[in-house]
Amino acid sequence: MDRIKRNERLAAMARVLTGTPNRLYTLSHFTEMFGAAKSTVSEDLSILADTFAQFDLGRLSTVAGAAGGVIYRAIPSREKRIAALEELSRRLSRPGRLLPGDFLYTTDITCDSDASEIMGEILACRYYEKNPNFVLTMETKGIPVAMMTAKMLNVPLVIARRDSKAYEGSAVKINYISGETGDRIETMALARRAVTPGQKALIIDDFMKGGGTLRGMHDLMREFDVEVVGTGVVIATAEPHLKRVDGVTALMVLSEVDRDRGSAVVKPSDWIYED
Amino acid sequence: MDRIKRNERLAAMARVLTGTPNRLYTLSHFTEMFGAAKSTVSEDLSILADTFAQFDLGRLSTVAGAAGGVIYRAIPSREKRIAALEELSRRLSRPGRLLPGDFLYTTDITCDSDASEIMGEILACRYYEKNPNFVLTMETKGIPVAMMTAKMLNVPLVIARRDSKAYEGSAVKINYISGETGDRIETMALARRAVTPGQKALIIDDFMKGGGTLRGMHDLMREFDVEVVGTGVVIATAEPHLKRVDGVTALMVLSEVDRDRGSAVVKPSDWIYED
Repeated sequence: MDRIKRNERLAAMARVLTGTPNRLYTLSHFTEMFGAAKSTVSEDLSILADTFAQFDLGRLSTVAGAAGGVIYRAIPSREKRIAALEELSRRLSRPGRLLPGDFLYTTDITCDSDASEIMGEILACRYYEKNPNFVLTMETKGIPVAMMTAKMLNVPLVIARRDSKAYEGSAVKINYISGETGDRIETMALARRAVTPGQKALIIDDFMKGGGTLRGMHDLMREFDVEVVGTGVVIATAEPHLKRVDGVTALMVLSEVDRDRGSAVVKPSDWIYED
Repeated sequence: MDRIKRNERLAAMARVLTGTPNRLYTLSHFTEMFGAAKSTVSEDLSILADTFAQFDLGRLSTVAGAAGGVIYRAIPSREKRIAALEELSRRLSRPGRLLPGDFLYTTDITCDSDASEIMGEILACRYYEKNPNFVLTMETKGIPVAMMTAKMLNVPLVIARRDSKAYEGSAVKINYISGETGDRIETMALARRAVTPGQKALIIDDFMKGGGTLRGMHDLMREFDVEVVGTGVVIATAEPHLKRVDGVTALMVLSEVDRDRGSAVVKPSDWIYED
């Protein structure tokens, strides 16, 4: 193999590091990949970190010490976060999205790969320091964003089901209360082998009104002796103000509906504008 | 802004291009980003293409002409494809995965972000030239891999539901036959606004035994005047040999089960070993 130039090393490292966010790569990984000295790879990483910072392409962090190395996290800047969520809010506020029963049609956005990725990036940012072992969601609509959040955190996705399924083996099943007036009892189930007691869960879902489904997921995790380190949703409704779960991070807030126009007012949450 | 060095341009371009696979970026996108000449950016892209090829990091293709530019596709080499699917097959063949009713527990693998990504990359490779407008899957287990396939193709994911939901608006609902002996009638539904007549669909699911669910998705697309340009699954069973849908691309084949060990024999499909 010809000697590999800095140009080429930087391009390859950018691809490798950003392809698996939140994974610690040792310096040896790259010294072996390129047949280069540690000092050379360190210099490369420093150029890479500056370039990512300059173009708002995420953050490269160096971890010192024997177990050290380098980690890429797709942390969007405040400007990028605001631009993305204002654009998504505009799309969600367009006439025709409000369905009978005041439901908002959101599936085209939560299932868009670019949109779900940026939402996953922004949600993940809030929970890097909590080190969840997995992301939990409840089928179905929350899965794409939960999947992208899991990818950014480099952890598996775990999906609670409406019912226990033969092809998932023995399961824990709980009842939870859903509906604004708490008048509906529903079921959620999770395969026993899906998680391990003592793990930490980040709960992600697409929509929160009363918070009943999220409450159910919290209760489900207690059955597994799993600690919930955070709860995030794509959209929360402003009303009811009191939710069944506290401390939920919402990307956007739905504040009012206009049945004549068939639209709703959706805006980025206040914290999106914080530094 | 200081003049941006080739090093830095290559690192930033690697991040941008690989972050949105299968999107055509014009040369102007990068000349504006860096304040660099077209000839300079062309040289950069040529170095980038060679580097990706050398390290098996995907393929960069240049499209000539006025509407031209550059496209990144995460096409894994034959070696990488084989290594990934042999490893996944080994994991799927481990004792204890076979559940009562001869179901195989696969959720931990289809929900793993690295595994679902490489499976999405390999599936997408077969369909770039077919230009699907979206990827269709049926809830729930196929969603992560279908989502990653959609990301690689840079198209949205569309999820058929078991039932029509109030929050997705008016829907088309069909019945389909599932179960090996064709003795179960089930329902799938898709919101009217989810797709547009005349579009092209790629169908992706996690598992195929008789092919009833896939047949249902084909029928559903016919109701929407959508052409199905391909069908891919993670695992197909060797038996029954005759499926309800022809020409399905499977990543792996499940050939036999050992009820005493609670395991199944899973291997990569033959085409994985082709050049």
